[in-house]
Amino acid sequence: MKKILIDVMGCDNPDAVIDGLALAINATEDVILVACGDQKRIEGRLADKTFDRSRLQFIDAPDEITNNDKSVNAVLMKKNSSLIVALNTLKTTADIPVMITAGSTGALIAGSILILGRNKPDDRATLVTHFPTDKGGMAVLADCGANVDCGPEHLLKFAQYASDYVKKVYAVENPRIGLLSNGTEDGKGSALTLSAFKLLKEDTSLNFIGNMEAKTTISGDYDVVVADGFSGNVLLKSIEGTAVSVVKRAMACFKQTVKTPEEMQTVKKAFGMLLSQLDFNSTGGAVLLGVRKPVVKAHGSANSDTVIHTVKQALHMIECGFAK
Amino acid sequence: MKKILIDVMGCDNPDAVIDGLALAINATEDVILVACGDQKRIEGRLADKTFDRSRLQFIDAPDEITNNDKSVNAVLMKKNSSLIVALNTLKTTADIPVMITAGSTGALIAGSILILGRNKPDDRATLVTHFPTDKGGMAVLADCGANVDCGPEHLLKFAQYASDYVKKVYAVENPRIGLLSNGTEDGKGSALTLSAFKLLKEDTSLNFIGNMEAKTTISGDYDVVVADGFSGNVLLKSIEGTAVSVVKRAMACFKQTVKTPEEMQTVKKAFGMLLSQLDFNSTGGAVLLGVRKPVVKAHGSANSDTVIHTVKQALHMIECGFAK
Repeated sequence: MKKILIDVMGCDNPDAVIDGLALAINATEDVILVACGDQKRIEGRLADKTFDRSRLQFIDAPDEITNNDKSVNAVLMKKNSSLIVALNTLKTTADIPVMITAGSTGALIAGSILILGRNKPDDRATLVTHFPTDKGGMAVLADCGANVDCGPEHLLKFAQYASDYVKKVYAVENPRIGLLSNGTEDGKGSALTLSAFKLLKEDTSLNFIGNMEAKTTISGDYDVVVADGFSGNVLLKSIEGTAVSVVKRAMACFKQTVKTPEEMQTVKKAFGMLLSQLDFNSTGGAVLLGVRKPVVKAHGSANSDTVIHTVKQALHMIECGFAK
Repeated sequence: MKKILIDVMGCDNPDAVIDGLALAINATEDVILVACGDQKRIEGRLADKTFDRSRLQFIDAPDEITNNDKSVNAVLMKKNSSLIVALNTLKTTADIPVMITAGSTGALIAGSILILGRNKPDDRATLVTHFPTDKGGMAVLADCGANVDCGPEHLLKFAQYASDYVKKVYAVENPRIGLLSNGTEDGKGSALTLSAFKLLKEDTSLNFIGNMEAKTTISGDYDVVVADGFSGNVLLKSIEGTAVSVVKRAMACFKQTVKTPEEMQTVKKAFGMLLSQLDFNSTGGAVLLGVRKPVVKAHGSANSDTVIHTVKQALHMIECGFAK
């Protein structure tokens, strides 16, 4: 049995995450979920659900860190919060290789560094996110918001971590790495990216393709997109926001042109296909790399489906040998 | 008669731009276009076109700066290139208030600063671009790539220029300004944006709303989005790239679901509406602000339609009193 730890609190809707525990157990085999949170609440919520109870364990931590807490303060002060208890459990429990949370990103990053520790003291932890590409594969973006101010050596680290992750998790032999810039030519970029370009070029263990532009992020031409966390966050959120906006506009156009109920059926079917392709949450959560054990960070608005997706994601990370 | 200067060379397809001169003259009234470029080539190309020839003037400049030239070198060395001759003409001709080019962005920015000069010596020129928003209005992004490395005082300048531009050109009384960041809370941001936040807050002449996220750029909640040119370029290109990608994916979904020719007609009509909404080029070119006279920068792949759009845009800038 593989063990996966889940922090069920500190998100927008803990009840939905708790419901997801039962669903995720039913949707997988050979997994024990270790739920960290208010045990009474979890047990009460799951009382009438049908699932294999031998595959659910508890770590009681009734307190929680919310988005209203200051990250570092909360990590230091809220010792009994589900997130901090979970991180301590992850650190000290040899047979739990990975953890899932939908809690505060800031507290997760600060807590992971303080409790789990960085891989090496001068490393930076990086949050990587996944995009399904136009060619049907996956691209990962590192960093997508953990480090808003970076030096060139951090961008090199992000590339190394993300490349290793893609190799193992997506079985891509030689991940193609692009450096996010304002043009594809070698001389394009900010002071930061021009320095990072040199470091990436020098590291012969990396398959560094060169500068890339934001518009080709999901083209399928890159397996890894490297960026400082500020630009990476802009990129991530503009892709998500634009996808939503274009779909809404398309729907409004169809509302004006559709003439019969049969046509409406066809349109609904096509939009259903499109939305399932664009549901970036179904590809799982972001992953925090560069700390001693990886943590899957689901969106704060996680629901029970999110739990199924992220449990499958974490399970795959164990099975492929990435999380151990 | 209002005079608008057009550099017809240095772009991907000068012949298409030349064709556009005749079309733009036919599509407007009360405008003289001053075409800067290879006069023989322009006259030859337009020989059999029907338009009011009294509204086309020439400045002969057969040489051109291409994207293969290093920007600053080209500006200094290629004195007879259409771009440099046009900028000198714009500078010295009192009755030409605005110019259009589809040439190299780098050479345009370097040339504008050297030839036209900044508004004030310590200012930065900024390239602003336009997005049609979900609410039907327009949002402008400053800077979208002219300044990849910025200080906080530059972001303040971008806000001031863009706010003044939106007031005059879009007749928005009190433009709502958002600062691009990795979260909406006041404390979110990089070292750069945290400092810029303070400066923007202190300038009581600005309607500064606070931090905004990339996903709300085209929501219609902001008239001006302020960013350093690196993040701004990432934002611009990811919006464009994602819009194209989502439309392609939607088309592929409809190909699989459409059953009859009648349905295909409905689908084509809806996509036609959507594409015309998403045709960011039809809203005109980017505008270089912060130099003594504004320059409209069309995409390097400009075609004859682009000339019509940008001539109308430049004409409006004159009519509303922004370009003078």
